Amino acid sequence: MEIKEHIITNPEKLLENLNELHPSDIAHSLKKIEKESSEDFFFILKQIPEDILGEVILELPDYLREDSYDELSSEKLTEIVYELESDDATDIIQELEEHNEEKAKEVFNGLEEEDKQQIEWLSRYEEDEAGSYMQTELFSANLNETIKESLDRLTLGKEEEELINIHQVYIVDNHKKLIASILLEDLILIDFKKTYQEVLDSHDENRFKANIVHDKEHIDDVAKKFEKYDLNAVAVVGFQDMLMGRITSDDILDVIEENATEQMYQLAGVDDDFEHDDNLYVTAKKRGYWLFLNLGTAILASLVIGIFEETLQAYVALAILMPIVASMGGNAGTQTLAVMVRQLALGDIDFDNSKDAIKKEVFISLVNGFVFAVIIGGIAWFWFNTAMLGVVIAISMIINLFSAGFFGASIPLILKKFDIDPAIGSTVLLTTVTDIVGFFSFLMLAKIILL
Amino acid sequence: MEIKEHIITNPEKLLENLNELHPSDIAHSLKKIEKESSEDFFFILKQIPEDILGEVILELPDYLREDSYDELSSEKLTEIVYELESDDATDIIQELEEHNEEKAKEVFNGLEEEDKQQIEWLSRYEEDEAGSYMQTELFSANLNETIKESLDRLTLGKEEEELINIHQVYIVDNHKKLIASILLEDLILIDFKKTYQEVLDSHDENRFKANIVHDKEHIDDVAKKFEKYDLNAVAVVGFQDMLMGRITSDDILDVIEENATEQMYQLAGVDDDFEHDDNLYVTAKKRGYWLFLNLGTAILASLVIGIFEETLQAYVALAILMPIVASMGGNAGTQTLAVMVRQLALGDIDFDNSKDAIKKEVFISLVNGFVFAVIIGGIAWFWFNTAMLGVVIAISMIINLFSAGFFGASIPLILKKFDIDPAIGSTVLLTTVTDIVGFFSFLMLAKIILL
Repeated sequence: MEIKEHIITNPEKLLENLNELHPSDIAHSLKKIEKESSEDFFFILKQIPEDILGEVILELPDYLREDSYDELSSEKLTEIVYELESDDATDIIQELEEHNEEKAKEVFNGLEEEDKQQIEWLSRYEEDEAGSYMQTELFSANLNETIKESLDRLTLGKEEEELINIHQVYIVDNHKKLIASILLEDLILIDFKKTYQEVLDSHDENRFKANIVHDKEHIDDVAKKFEKYDLNAVAVVGFQDMLMGRITSDDILDVIEENATEQMYQLAGVDDDFEHDDNLYVTAKKRGYWLFLNLGTAILASLVIGIFEETLQAYVALAILMPIVASMGGNAGTQTLAVMVRQLALGDIDFDNSKDAIKKEVFISLVNGFVFAVIIGGIAWFWFNTAMLGVVIAISMIINLFSAGFFGASIPLILKKFDIDPAIGSTVLLTTVTDIVGFFSFLMLAKIILL
Repeated sequence: MEIKEHIITNPEKLLENLNELHPSDIAHSLKKIEKESSEDFFFILKQIPEDILGEVILELPDYLREDSYDELSSEKLTEIVYELESDDATDIIQELEEHNEEKAKEVFNGLEEEDKQQIEWLSRYEEDEAGSYMQTELFSANLNETIKESLDRLTLGKEEEELINIHQVYIVDNHKKLIASILLEDLILIDFKKTYQEVLDSHDENRFKANIVHDKEHIDDVAKKFEKYDLNAVAVVGFQDMLMGRITSDDILDVIEENATEQMYQLAGVDDDFEHDDNLYVTAKKRGYWLFLNLGTAILASLVIGIFEETLQAYVALAILMPIVASMGGNAGTQTLAVMVRQLALGDIDFDNSKDAIKKEVFISLVNGFVFAVIIGGIAWFWFNTAMLGVVIAISMIINLFSAGFFGASIPLILKKFDIDPAIGSTVLLTTVTDIVGFFSFLMLAKIILL
């Protein structure tokens, strides 16, 4: 069937089609319906079968998720959590805890012992550790089992809808240590009567090696491995290579998308965590912090201009042309910054080749510095009919574009050296440089040459 | 085995370990070795076995890929292309065509008839069509075949290393029309003696529906479907649902990463296509185009300032404070722009909820407008000991932050309405607005209130 979005904004129609729709489409439809009537939203929410309701809730925006937690009973929420995979179940319990601790406890206590253990265990991982992204549901088999025996378990797991999205069998020894992994595309061709030990013995030892990451590894590093080695799924192991869970490519798609958003926002001075807040004052406040830093920069630039009060008084053309140099420096610096920050994140630039990167950026900005020096020099000369004014702005343009390239390339590297995310803070530091160098060089040269 | 990068910068050691390393690691090692000695680079390149050399070359940066095409004979290149999957083979042939048409022809003519056809066929797709991302190697079976028969073909395909990364069998009728798809995790549990027709007949008709995209679909839309529906692989169909190929999640990871880079670069005025050019003058020229647009904006702003030459002459404090309002507007506008552009790309904002988005941005910028009006108004008053100067800059701050929010939200939406990528051009248009509104409102208010 062709994959197509099905967004249904008519409440009755949505109810009729609940069983046909993907949870993600139901969530999107609900979002639109809630805009018109929150009554309809809650009415439909309660009609959604428990086995997909959890997935629907996870696709809702924050504020609707919280409304849902309020509206649904603890019993219903328990059923929903029970139906989810371990990683999603943990996410909901953790979110519910922040929102309504009492209810979270009730839901948690209503779960089966095994689920409780898994959630407790997954909750212990930090937000950015591989462990907090893994699901514990996977298809594993003991070395001494026959393939047939393990497949009977797969059948059971599939009937209970516990095992989905299975690409390989993970083979463990009696201590749950991960020994190997056989892709289903290989397993399906092997004689099912063999034990896994026999299968491994009759092949090269590297033939069925598993792709492993550690549970404490940073999720960004895991994502890089997926990209670099074109992976589909990895096994997550803990202490002494014990098999803990697995991470699949759909989780990694989300990680990559979120990281890219975060980076783009950080360069612009926006904090993604507070962008979706219910309370717009909170969003405004968070953005305001950044603007406050920029106000500091702008005032610093004004102080620099203030030094040349007399020069400006004597020659008002300087005030008219003054913003051009600073603005060009800011824009050239932003270009360099975007390239550096992104390539540092992608691993294309590292400390080994950082000198080459700086050289490249300085070269590019100098080339453009000379080109725009000639252009703006000519314009200033004709505009104010003063050749020396052209010379002043031209030299200042070269100086400022040079520093835009040099500092635009160095600032992210220096921040990274100090283990600060280069996307945070780079912009404000660079603007300070290009503003101050831009205004100072232009007005200082004018004072020396023109007066 | 734990997934770890293995970069070997010692040429002899790399040669010894060629068979152990992932093509991606070999490529990264070669890149480092080439920096020290291009002789070593070429020497090792020629020692790499043909069955992985293609994958190594595809992971090299552009300039080294071109060097490799020059260095390797047409015969060797033909063998390399022969070993690759159809989509990668097509990429190499197309790139070679641009670089050395003669050699590309020789390589192409040396291929087997079937490979030639596939490459010709894949070459016909536009760069951003799903078809150009698909690989034609897949595991398919006819309705009338038994599972056993099809698995014998899978065995063969795996022995020839033609079929890897297989997650499902695609079931087609006699006209190659795609009928269904069975995941290996289901297939492995079914009696292999059955024909596919029998399997389909004994299940609900939706049980084995295939996830389908069309060959002419935009790859970005395909990527969105992967994310939204947590897909692993999709079948690509052409005219009359004929099965053409498949796209897997590793291809989509690259698409998402590249799109994010492109967006971030576009907002900063950088063209990704020319960033990796061998010739730095080309990169500088491309960045220069953008700076040229910004020069236009800056000169426009200067013209606005020029209108108030007499006001500035009478009151030099205005020249000192002038950049603050424009700079704050620029920064607030950049915040809004980043959020709008990214959320438009992710589909979180569309034309349905665009009014809400504009309202939100205007609200946020007005809140910050009032806050910073008070702060900067106070500073200006004390700094120059003139209360009315504080009033002027405060009002101007509110006006400019309002227009930053309003235009920062509207410009991307308007561009999108005209089918222009919102990331391109938004920044320059917005800077024009915030600069002109910033300088004009400040100086005009000063002229009216102060003089």
